[in-house]
Amino acid sequence: MNKEFLYTEITNGLASQIRNGLLKPGDKLPSVRNLCHEHQISMNTAKRVFLELESQSLIESKPQSGYFVSPSLSVKLPLPEISRPSLIANNNEPDELISTVYENMGKSNLTLFSIAIPSGDLLPQAKLKKEIINATRELKSGGAEYEELQGNLKLRRMVAQRSLSWGGNFNENDLITTNGGMNALSFCLMALGKPGDTIAIESPCYPGILQLATGLGLKVLELPTHPAHGIEIEALKKAIPDIDICLLIPNFNTPLGSCMSDEHKKEVVKLLAENGIPLIEDDVYGDIYFGAHRPKCCKSFDKEGNVLYCSSISKTLAPGYRVGWIAPGKYKDKILKLKLLHSTSSISIVNEAVANFLKTGRYDKHLQQLRRTLQSNYQNYVQTIVESFPEGTKISRPQGGLSLWIEFDKTIQTRKLYDLAIKQDISIAPGRMFSLQDQFENCMRLCIGLPWSETIQEKLKQVGVLAKTI
Amino acid sequence: MNKEFLYTEITNGLASQIRNGLLKPGDKLPSVRNLCHEHQISMNTAKRVFLELESQSLIESKPQSGYFVSPSLSVKLPLPEISRPSLIANNNEPDELISTVYENMGKSNLTLFSIAIPSGDLLPQAKLKKEIINATRELKSGGAEYEELQGNLKLRRMVAQRSLSWGGNFNENDLITTNGGMNALSFCLMALGKPGDTIAIESPCYPGILQLATGLGLKVLELPTHPAHGIEIEALKKAIPDIDICLLIPNFNTPLGSCMSDEHKKEVVKLLAENGIPLIEDDVYGDIYFGAHRPKCCKSFDKEGNVLYCSSISKTLAPGYRVGWIAPGKYKDKILKLKLLHSTSSISIVNEAVANFLKTGRYDKHLQQLRRTLQSNYQNYVQTIVESFPEGTKISRPQGGLSLWIEFDKTIQTRKLYDLAIKQDISIAPGRMFSLQDQFENCMRLCIGLPWSETIQEKLKQVGVLAKTI
Repeated sequence: MNKEFLYTEITNGLASQIRNGLLKPGDKLPSVRNLCHEHQISMNTAKRVFLELESQSLIESKPQSGYFVSPSLSVKLPLPEISRPSLIANNNEPDELISTVYENMGKSNLTLFSIAIPSGDLLPQAKLKKEIINATRELKSGGAEYEELQGNLKLRRMVAQRSLSWGGNFNENDLITTNGGMNALSFCLMALGKPGDTIAIESPCYPGILQLATGLGLKVLELPTHPAHGIEIEALKKAIPDIDICLLIPNFNTPLGSCMSDEHKKEVVKLLAENGIPLIEDDVYGDIYFGAHRPKCCKSFDKEGNVLYCSSISKTLAPGYRVGWIAPGKYKDKILKLKLLHSTSSISIVNEAVANFLKTGRYDKHLQQLRRTLQSNYQNYVQTIVESFPEGTKISRPQGGLSLWIEFDKTIQTRKLYDLAIKQDISIAPGRMFSLQDQFENCMRLCIGLPWSETIQEKLKQVGVLAKTI
Repeated sequence: MNKEFLYTEITNGLASQIRNGLLKPGDKLPSVRNLCHEHQISMNTAKRVFLELESQSLIESKPQSGYFVSPSLSVKLPLPEISRPSLIANNNEPDELISTVYENMGKSNLTLFSIAIPSGDLLPQAKLKKEIINATRELKSGGAEYEELQGNLKLRRMVAQRSLSWGGNFNENDLITTNGGMNALSFCLMALGKPGDTIAIESPCYPGILQLATGLGLKVLELPTHPAHGIEIEALKKAIPDIDICLLIPNFNTPLGSCMSDEHKKEVVKLLAENGIPLIEDDVYGDIYFGAHRPKCCKSFDKEGNVLYCSSISKTLAPGYRVGWIAPGKYKDKILKLKLLHSTSSISIVNEAVANFLKTGRYDKHLQQLRRTLQSNYQNYVQTIVESFPEGTKISRPQGGLSLWIEFDKTIQTRKLYDLAIKQDISIAPGRMFSLQDQFENCMRLCIGLPWSETIQEKLKQVGVLAKTI
């Protein structure tokens, strides 16, 4: 077996055991020699495994004694509560709050804990630039003319190819490109919903989805959602008679970071298909898993074309390129028509550049690096939160993605915390943004996509200190 | 006065006189010497004026006698009729026809008379490529990160600056960028209309607008439209009580090529404002005028922010870049929100590249060249149509744009003509596509954006020959 592959497998395996609690804080890890023996790897590879785990703050070495699971995680913070939204469709948009948060984002020198995208420093900018230049050379008319309505064939092929390795199993004809992930969701909602229809979603939910749905005149039904395992199937079952569409972020959901298990996905797909309710699946975070493998998607279990799978490269490669796609199942014709009417065609140059980037295999290397960084960021965030946040703080345990969900004691209003933090040039995302009901007022989302540094650590501490003053 | 400016003024002035019929076919033009004297220009400049007019097929030289208005235009074809659609909102979409025409466009070796965009050969591809490369260098993160929601500031500034010269009078804060012109129209319709609302449009009308409006659940009211002067104000007045939105292409409309006069625009803007009906203005063809000056837009006369002005560079520079904009007047907040929800941000690289291209002044040179080519194409089309099309053919007299509207004798069904032509690898746009009612079945639109050649001439002749067989 490939040496590099083994290295990654073993590292991720141990990391998962630590995060899952199989290896507990303070536990001793196997010696370098034992690891070699157990996995039939060289001393050097074994050492690299430990160094990597150490760089992720998961383990610490003690002189003469070996490696131990980091004690910094020993003070385990509890998980946030399972959400219990009102099960009547609500439309109490936190408009004013969202406007405030968005408007302030324009401030310079702001520490942006409030958005769920990777910082520009984590993107392979130089290589992407080269691909843009290549694209202008390779494309007919340098990309100045319209491309095929369904989208760049090379990109669709690459996305389809990659999906085979994790059970997406698309082919190039299943896919339609869009101007990023939100554009993909927007086409799906326009294709499926008419004003007055009800859409079921996770709670808390990404504000863009809430606004898009209400903007299209849909009624929004928020369903109880477990902070680690996703939407509650029982609640969904009960809601079936009332809903027309369901939209989920099954993998590393924002803001919760929850990830549905394969069994759970399968069950949801079956339930919705049996009841003729289409499922829109937003999988933009699927590629940034912290574990050993990329999780499957709901679409993997879709036999009837009932799942509209949406994804993009905005969370991994280049948000500004607006390159996304839909595998719309049996709704392909509808989506194609909407794309023609609302945007005519995708933008050849960026799509061609991304296709070529995926083709070189650089994407995998980049993803590996990005995942490692985010995972280590996550550890660092947790450590700082443990040290500096008020007693009673609960946090989510994402197994991937860009978001950390914080639940404070009921007395700590994050709307107030926002006002205090922004004065110190720190932007957080108050929990109320993630619902159309009055809930999550003591919660907030933090983005872990900023490169870790003393400054970031300081700013994060400051949030904790400010929270204590409320 | 600038010599080059004088040359252009005089050339365009004479061209207009010929097209307007002030100078009639066979009329003698002033001698080179007289022209020099009259305008205080050099012999060389005067000669260039005549050479240019000759290259546009507007005049011919007769040895020893001087220049004369081309006799080829002497057989003047009449204008198409003013449209008289049913004044009840209809929704009889020519779905099957549109699908056929669009699907066949994928055929290779097709002569595409059916679309209204300039051929790739007429675009400044090499210079645009350079600007793309520059953009990746100049932009923060090479364009990989989101840009400001309202859109690239440099582009908005350039569009605003340019608008001052022709009465658009935007400033950079009035403008929001979009992914092309259709995306601009889509945002406007979503911002203003709800299902069941009625929208008034010109008849015939661009199929994309018809489909977009019906797709959003709007009722479409087609209004009588003059082939040269645009929508009939009397009909609009009568329709006022029934309509919620009005959408017009006032300058070099597709398919008619009509252009509303300033007075007409002013009156329409006033009428709609008085009745609280917003006007969406699509001005994508405004820059490709054949006359001496760019026409104003309806927005020039808008005092109350009631006009939502939409434009793009898709008809002049690079359709595939999808760079467009809206000056939404008092609807700015609504449009910004829609942009955030449905597309998050524009694509920095192409917007920056276009901004830089506009800034160099190359755009003006390119436009000059493009206008000259289209104008000369137009003359060549007319000449071929006069020679080869069936008796009774009527054609529009566009003063700019990319479309020529043909009206045959009632017995000639362009649906049939389409079927015959496509077998010979020629694609035309049958008139029925441009309405939601059963009208224009003996009409078609031809694109004049293909570079003129013997092949194109031959193909156009073939259309005429086929029409005679019906």
